[in-house]
Amino acid sequence: MRNLTLLTDFYELTMMQGYFKSGKSQDRVIFDMYYRKNPCGNGFSICCGLEQVVEYIRNLNFNEEDIDYLRSLKIFDEDFIDYLRGFHFTGDIYAIPEGTAVFPREPLVKVIAPVIEAQLIESALLNIINHQSLIATKASRVVHAAAGDSVMEFGLRRAQGPDAGIYGARAAIIAGCIGTSNVFAGKKFGVPVMGTHAHSWIMSFPTELEAFITYGRLYPESCILLVDTYDTLKSGVKNAIRCFDTLKAEGIKLKRYGIRMDSGDLAYLSKKAKKMLDEAGYTEAVISASNDLDEDLISSLKLQGATINSWGVGTKLITSENQPSFGGVYKLAAIMGENGKWIPKIKLSENSEKITNPGDKQVYRIVQKESGKVFADYICLADEVFSEEEDLTLFDPVETWKKSTLEGGSYTMEPLLQPIFEGGKLVYTCPSVEEITEHAKRELDRLWDECKRLKNPHNVHVDLSDKLYEMKIKLLEEYR
Amino acid sequence: MRNLTLLTDFYELTMMQGYFKSGKSQDRVIFDMYYRKNPCGNGFSICCGLEQVVEYIRNLNFNEEDIDYLRSLKIFDEDFIDYLRGFHFTGDIYAIPEGTAVFPREPLVKVIAPVIEAQLIESALLNIINHQSLIATKASRVVHAAAGDSVMEFGLRRAQGPDAGIYGARAAIIAGCIGTSNVFAGKKFGVPVMGTHAHSWIMSFPTELEAFITYGRLYPESCILLVDTYDTLKSGVKNAIRCFDTLKAEGIKLKRYGIRMDSGDLAYLSKKAKKMLDEAGYTEAVISASNDLDEDLISSLKLQGATINSWGVGTKLITSENQPSFGGVYKLAAIMGENGKWIPKIKLSENSEKITNPGDKQVYRIVQKESGKVFADYICLADEVFSEEEDLTLFDPVETWKKSTLEGGSYTMEPLLQPIFEGGKLVYTCPSVEEITEHAKRELDRLWDECKRLKNPHNVHVDLSDKLYEMKIKLLEEYR
Repeated sequence: MRNLTLLTDFYELTMMQGYFKSGKSQDRVIFDMYYRKNPCGNGFSICCGLEQVVEYIRNLNFNEEDIDYLRSLKIFDEDFIDYLRGFHFTGDIYAIPEGTAVFPREPLVKVIAPVIEAQLIESALLNIINHQSLIATKASRVVHAAAGDSVMEFGLRRAQGPDAGIYGARAAIIAGCIGTSNVFAGKKFGVPVMGTHAHSWIMSFPTELEAFITYGRLYPESCILLVDTYDTLKSGVKNAIRCFDTLKAEGIKLKRYGIRMDSGDLAYLSKKAKKMLDEAGYTEAVISASNDLDEDLISSLKLQGATINSWGVGTKLITSENQPSFGGVYKLAAIMGENGKWIPKIKLSENSEKITNPGDKQVYRIVQKESGKVFADYICLADEVFSEEEDLTLFDPVETWKKSTLEGGSYTMEPLLQPIFEGGKLVYTCPSVEEITEHAKRELDRLWDECKRLKNPHNVHVDLSDKLYEMKIKLLEEYR
Repeated sequence: MRNLTLLTDFYELTMMQGYFKSGKSQDRVIFDMYYRKNPCGNGFSICCGLEQVVEYIRNLNFNEEDIDYLRSLKIFDEDFIDYLRGFHFTGDIYAIPEGTAVFPREPLVKVIAPVIEAQLIESALLNIINHQSLIATKASRVVHAAAGDSVMEFGLRRAQGPDAGIYGARAAIIAGCIGTSNVFAGKKFGVPVMGTHAHSWIMSFPTELEAFITYGRLYPESCILLVDTYDTLKSGVKNAIRCFDTLKAEGIKLKRYGIRMDSGDLAYLSKKAKKMLDEAGYTEAVISASNDLDEDLISSLKLQGATINSWGVGTKLITSENQPSFGGVYKLAAIMGENGKWIPKIKLSENSEKITNPGDKQVYRIVQKESGKVFADYICLADEVFSEEEDLTLFDPVETWKKSTLEGGSYTMEPLLQPIFEGGKLVYTCPSVEEITEHAKRELDRLWDECKRLKNPHNVHVDLSDKLYEMKIKLLEEYR
């Protein structure tokens, strides 16, 4: 297990020493991690990365090497360094479980801890959740565009470093990819690994046909042949058919067979290839495509009648090419007063979207019983009590005259933030990637189709409770 | 040290077993790693990541856990698994040193090894070099736009996972950033770490002024105050000046002082803030800015007369936001024949830019003695011998009628590909990040300004030798 304790921004450490020196280090605070906008114009995001945050928190400790390094910077005093030597996380963390569909402005993670601890973990927590939530959300778009065809994650070589490949593969699987090319990720997370051969395999044999036949004899379980090394239709597909014929004549039964195209006009070539394969009797052939695909290209190829039924998606998925960052932030929401009550805090901004929601909060998901679909999310103060039997009136926190009322008994209200750490102790069992994948699938089933379309989706409302709204307005008025 | 042996695409392993089973595993081959287009419209790239490739190659071994995992997939036979158990890299690797300015289509890395070994390392080698070269190139654009102002790398929280933060920081420093916020990277690579405080520091005190003064008393070495928590001009800058006055009155000498702005109209606010600071006598104040900056925004702010002299650049640098992948590829260039001679190999494509350069190659950098500037790069066969005393005629490999001749004695020719591994043994001493940074600086000094401008730069020619060009044309004609 890597020790990532120093995976933090330097200012976290200067602030920590500042809190320490000014006697505030044990002041209890609440930080919220949330984001402001769904990536890639999506209608929701899939939160992801909690398991790695849990690992990170559990392994937090400054070893002697870390201590020596910090001392060498000649900016930290010995009393603070002594404190770091015994550091471990003693606070509470609440989080929305991985694989859940989430929306802008709601806390995905809530940290309640002494300020000196809450501050340290900001950078790594954001790094991990931002990355995996980004890739999960992007991958869910790609899977949506594939409309039931299988999507494989093939991006390792273009990922932004080893972790981006490994944890990006994890996020992609959670969002619905059926497998990854990344063997490290396959082992680490117990997820399916996939892939056949590269152009170099073909080029290392005297002929394409020989390369195909050698491959097919070895891997009759899944014989998908790469057909574009020399000429897709004139050479590749013809030789693939010859290869299937030869293997059949040898009595080798191919369990799964087909072709992969990695270049050229995939709409045209797939249709021609399908015709050739059908005419040769190989109607069950997988027609797989790769080559800088993303959700837009897949949608377009489908519109053009491409006969591709299996998609290998690399670069543009693993980097979330059209928006490579998630934009999650970590903001102070409250400080414990001397009377043991939370003093809500607000961060102002010229841009009203950037104004934070103060206080100790919970998020509820409001689901309509009749449709089983998500109606809205509802952010309230953590100590508010609701009854599903009573009418619930929701209003838009900006355009407050926009209201709607749900009748008591017609909806359910589920708290999204779950306890993960209590008093520094892990109280949550991280589900397996397989379980998270299942959860994500159920989550998508609960969203209306209008929220899932790739362009201009309907935005699910994220409303504030009356009490939270009043607290926010009061704080805003105090500062102005 | 992490064991990244399984950080490979699954098809590398199926191909490896294929080579093993068909008795070809020890066939010697040459693979070239190169790229086709500079990222972000730049006129060059800065290659980066070699040290991590060296670590990866040296640590290559399948441990028992890896072996058990591969066996569990039920696709690899015991004889192949036995071979993997004893696997280590026995080949030769040549590479262009880190920090060198490089151009499209020239090999950055050349691997000469048994095909079974050369194939395994493809994915990780591409992952590492692609990522770090991307970030180094992007960072060099940002540093160029800052035109002598200092640039700090602040992207950890938005990087695509821990490694992207850590190795991205390394690449950014190599490209000219003066420091990083990433403490882990600071320790690992011995590079400067930087940063002061966040909005949460300010919000955790009853008043902004109190937060400032507390900070300044603690850190008089570098007292840069974040002024945009409540209102940049009406509150933040005024309180910063009050803080500097107070500390002065207390006899505290600030070595470095100033403000940081993280939101709002940076052009307007910086000019107003500068005026306020100047009028208060703080003419030496650092005016630092952050907030989704990139090379375009920095150029634009400079054009608008912003008085910012220190730039904190995060998200858009660490993800290379407008082009988050480098696109390096790894292609078979030759196979050793039974007679001990290389048989050159070519990969065809409809797109002539995607056609590979065959054979065992070297790249020379041609520098004009008079100007000291790079005239062109020259790809030739590795066994070609040249004399700098003879005239050298270069021609464009596509528009072959475009020729230019350099007079003997007027230029130098430096081989760029250096031996890194020979027979599996490391024969290269990886320079420190500091040394690589110096090298990169000298490299940029050797490029004409026209190659370094951010939009529509002049492209340095990368030409082929007569022999290499003839070999390529011959192979193309054979296949057509």
